[in-house]
Amino acid sequence: MNKEIFIGIDLGGTNVRVGAVTPEGEVLASQDNPLEARLGPQAGVEKISSLITRVTQQAGGRLQAIGIGSSGPVDRDLGAIQNPYTLPTWENVDIVGMLRDKFHVPATIENDADAAALGESWMGAGRGLPRLIMVTVGTGVGTAFIQNGLIYRGAGGVHCEGGHMILDPSGPECYCGAKGCWESLASGTAVGAFAREQATLHPTLMTELAEGDLQRIDAAIAAEAARRGDPLARGIFDQAADYIGLGLVNLILLFLPECIVLTGGVMRSFDLLEARIRAVIGRHNIMVPADRVALRLAGLGQQAGMIGAARAAMLHVDEKS
Amino acid sequence: MNKEIFIGIDLGGTNVRVGAVTPEGEVLASQDNPLEARLGPQAGVEKISSLITRVTQQAGGRLQAIGIGSSGPVDRDLGAIQNPYTLPTWENVDIVGMLRDKFHVPATIENDADAAALGESWMGAGRGLPRLIMVTVGTGVGTAFIQNGLIYRGAGGVHCEGGHMILDPSGPECYCGAKGCWESLASGTAVGAFAREQATLHPTLMTELAEGDLQRIDAAIAAEAARRGDPLARGIFDQAADYIGLGLVNLILLFLPECIVLTGGVMRSFDLLEARIRAVIGRHNIMVPADRVALRLAGLGQQAGMIGAARAAMLHVDEKS
Repeated sequence: MNKEIFIGIDLGGTNVRVGAVTPEGEVLASQDNPLEARLGPQAGVEKISSLITRVTQQAGGRLQAIGIGSSGPVDRDLGAIQNPYTLPTWENVDIVGMLRDKFHVPATIENDADAAALGESWMGAGRGLPRLIMVTVGTGVGTAFIQNGLIYRGAGGVHCEGGHMILDPSGPECYCGAKGCWESLASGTAVGAFAREQATLHPTLMTELAEGDLQRIDAAIAAEAARRGDPLARGIFDQAADYIGLGLVNLILLFLPECIVLTGGVMRSFDLLEARIRAVIGRHNIMVPADRVALRLAGLGQQAGMIGAARAAMLHVDEKS
Repeated sequence: MNKEIFIGIDLGGTNVRVGAVTPEGEVLASQDNPLEARLGPQAGVEKISSLITRVTQQAGGRLQAIGIGSSGPVDRDLGAIQNPYTLPTWENVDIVGMLRDKFHVPATIENDADAAALGESWMGAGRGLPRLIMVTVGTGVGTAFIQNGLIYRGAGGVHCEGGHMILDPSGPECYCGAKGCWESLASGTAVGAFAREQATLHPTLMTELAEGDLQRIDAAIAAEAARRGDPLARGIFDQAADYIGLGLVNLILLFLPECIVLTGGVMRSFDLLEARIRAVIGRHNIMVPADRVALRLAGLGQQAGMIGAARAAMLHVDEKS
């Protein structure tokens, strides 16, 4: 009953996951619930509070601190979420202050990509390594760099956005202002768009899998078609693998980490991508020993963000003391 | 007579510069001499030793430690230079051990780009800032990252090679294994090659400046022609500025430093490049506050590497104690 526990909260656009984690990284209890962000931040914080109370009771320990990993832009200084996009109505929500006042413990907030990377560095695929980069290839492409167990931050504490580095100026326009940034070339959104484009031009199994409705074709349908041997879908994944590989080469040239951890929806198709990604890295092995960088899939699955948020809470307490 | 002094050595392919630097960063004495690398490492180390003795006497202080910033690959663990390319015959030269044995003080070695960046971070254009990236655009393109006054190193202590990040896969092939890496697109070598290519196709002032010998056209001639209003040469610098800008955007997205310090031969034409480089950065200001990153020319000139090497010697002593 006297165990110290830290609460980790993974706050996404649709779901919130709350866990009670020990200083050794054991998850004693966790809850996963729909967030219903549209009901507003007040209702959301109440739901989160009741989940915190529940997992704290289940874990049977003493609550030490709360860490939040939140989707989208966060203001770490203000402890606020600034995210009307993935969390509609959540603008300037001082979630850190609200939870601190309610539970009378320190609280802190991180970008969700940073929190997940921290989790993987602490207890997952990059455990104990001095330099880890986590790359999330899903709807978008995100990167996070963990150095000696701490989140790397840019000037002013800002989260860096390596997913928007420019890889091919002849590529598609992105909302980030670039043409041919990594996300515009290799994200699930990009794969889906390339697949739809190809399906309008050529016969492909993808059209059949989408029951003739080209607009339904997405990265998942393309992956299914590629696995069944459709050459067009196969080509789309080859192209994605080449661009994923080029982005990884750049990360390796700039950071040379011990390990790159891959996650996100597109990485569910790692079997379709791996050989080609490794071939691209192998071709760029001259300036730095690129092939020594371990390339691993995330080890903590859906819990990475929650565990990392709990770790952020621990680090926050250490920092203050 | 009791001042503590640290020796900084900037060892390039043609010249060696040796200076006596105080813990406050004051250069008390320095010497710049041709190295004549081809005479072999033994002769080279003797020359360097006599320069060390001379500047130590001139400075009139107590020698504490020696730092070397060396062109090309260095093996920091072995303290050796591995550079038969820019220092012919210098292969596996244990310069650190030789100088340590001769002067009976600690000695250390760094890549020259890292040493110069350390100098700029300590006493130059990035003084006191937590995150500085130095970009050298000369014969090649090199990058170095200084974090809280220390050199960032990759796994195994390896120097990173951001100058070879891929920016445009439709670009020229590079010895690094990539097509369209930053160096292949924006280095002085690349600018010269583009200029010669253009001069074979179209009439240009560059041909006149090279006295009709197209093979003599290089980045310096292109810069001269651009300043005199030659549209072809102007276009070549516009293209170089665009690629320099794209590379800087990627560094900003991945590191978001307070400051980027520019140096190298091509940066002598900063007046031809600046407006366009800043425009490229301004177009990529959405994901991170790119326009807040200070873009500065190096402040220590030719002394950056020497001063940084002396600083590396100080840090080496601190690290050991």
